[in-house]
Amino acid sequence: MNSPHTYTRLRVALVENSPALAATDARLRDIITFAADNTGKLVRARLVFAAAQAHGLEGGAAERLACAVEYFHVASLLLDDLPCMDDAFTRRGRPCAHKVYGEAPAILGALAFINRAYALSGFAFAMYPADVRMQATACLDACLGPAGLLGGQAADLSFAESDRSARAVSAVAMRKTGALFWLAVYFPALLAAPSPGELRALKALCVYWGQAYQAADDLQDALMNAFEAGKTTGRDRALTRPNLAHAIGVPAAQARIARLLEQARRAVAVLDGKSARWSYLGGFHREFVEPMVGAVAA
Amino acid sequence: MNSPHTYTRLRVALVENSPALAATDARLRDIITFAADNTGKLVRARLVFAAAQAHGLEGGAAERLACAVEYFHVASLLLDDLPCMDDAFTRRGRPCAHKVYGEAPAILGALAFINRAYALSGFAFAMYPADVRMQATACLDACLGPAGLLGGQAADLSFAESDRSARAVSAVAMRKTGALFWLAVYFPALLAAPSPGELRALKALCVYWGQAYQAADDLQDALMNAFEAGKTTGRDRALTRPNLAHAIGVPAAQARIARLLEQARRAVAVLDGKSARWSYLGGFHREFVEPMVGAVAA
Repeated sequence: MNSPHTYTRLRVALVENSPALAATDARLRDIITFAADNTGKLVRARLVFAAAQAHGLEGGAAERLACAVEYFHVASLLLDDLPCMDDAFTRRGRPCAHKVYGEAPAILGALAFINRAYALSGFAFAMYPADVRMQATACLDACLGPAGLLGGQAADLSFAESDRSARAVSAVAMRKTGALFWLAVYFPALLAAPSPGELRALKALCVYWGQAYQAADDLQDALMNAFEAGKTTGRDRALTRPNLAHAIGVPAAQARIARLLEQARRAVAVLDGKSARWSYLGGFHREFVEPMVGAVAA
Repeated sequence: MNSPHTYTRLRVALVENSPALAATDARLRDIITFAADNTGKLVRARLVFAAAQAHGLEGGAAERLACAVEYFHVASLLLDDLPCMDDAFTRRGRPCAHKVYGEAPAILGALAFINRAYALSGFAFAMYPADVRMQATACLDACLGPAGLLGGQAADLSFAESDRSARAVSAVAMRKTGALFWLAVYFPALLAAPSPGELRALKALCVYWGQAYQAADDLQDALMNAFEAGKTTGRDRALTRPNLAHAIGVPAAQARIARLLEQARRAVAVLDGKSARWSYLGGFHREFVEPMVGAVAA
């Protein structure tokens, strides 16, 4: 899963499937190309790509489903960075898209990625039975709508009006970061028609990964400077946004991450015990979650 | 089509299917409810509702498809009014949503409508054959993406950099207003598997309706005050946006609208001659397009 070949292949696919080709307006085309190229480690895309291949999609179709999930993520980052949201300046070591191309192109660019992501998702499931397709439609509705990612972004912005407890921090992380993991894990898993027991273990795993990942992001925001993190830091304190390290302190947040990683390992073991078709989840945990989350939490 | 009963029924459906119910964040829920309730004449929703019923969807399913297209429209209005786009103050006689609830909730609210619209569209076509579903997916991709609505919005914003000719004005109208008519006409028509000849006539009709409707909107922006129009006017001149009346003058714009209405009538007659299943299009033309466009163009 962690091979340079897969990474390069997905980078190419992200450019090839991007909505830039359909754009005649130069500024819209440029911002889409800029955002499609300014990728991180592609953790979600790699996870979806591995899942889709394990569950029977051929290479090109697996790539397109991976692009769909990554585009939903790219769109959320374009919007998160806007002045009316996090007012960020840098993202992955480069200036934020709206700083280069303007706010309106950033919003329209985000919508272009979302529009393309829905089309790619629709085509990926087109030949599956009606019940699987309806589950996929319901999954996107729940993960990305007000009960999921959008609700998490809204709760993030109005966090100052909450009691600012660790519980409130986790509730936002659950919907904001958890929803995207849920999308990256559950959405391609629908291709395999998981049993109720497998579904429970998949759900639990997404909770642990989402919480651990967000807690590591919180520590990064609290402890690193922009150069180390590759993005604007210190924003949670400045904007009164949820941050586990602020709510319970750095050592407690680090201990919590260690516990979440242990719980995730156990959920992976449960799935491994049920069927070999979930083995990519263990690979993802060892190759991505442990090193990335562990590096910040250590 | 123009019955008060249908209007009331669609108003209720727009509230019932809205993404507000899934929102736990108060501000997000309130802005969704506000926008779902601040409806205009529901021309697109009525057209889709009539089409879906004519092409065999039962009442509830026809309502949901009508809501989907209306939600895509509502989302585009929420974003168009933002300070970085048209910077509008009023919409349909009320303050713009972002003026009441803020910019970030307006953006997240728009995304919530888009997300729900995709879900409703997916469910509406779920039981149709794979080729119809793939056409529906491709239709949403083309109508709403950079080749359609999003591209039109981008071209609208960068119009000052064009040659500002009548041709450039029409090109923006074609993608911005034309794309939404295309969505309201072609998308539900897919349920009926139109013949190539019917498809050509449907395409032509969307061009005439889209251009006529946008030209009437341009005249309204140029000639009326905010009280008469129910929304901020004079924006096209102030922001150097495409406006046919500015490009060729008011009398020439009025004459052009009269020609477009005549062309639309002929396209409707062609479709009527092919099959009785297109009769709702003539009804829409007589009950909505002629009175609305004619009132401004007279």
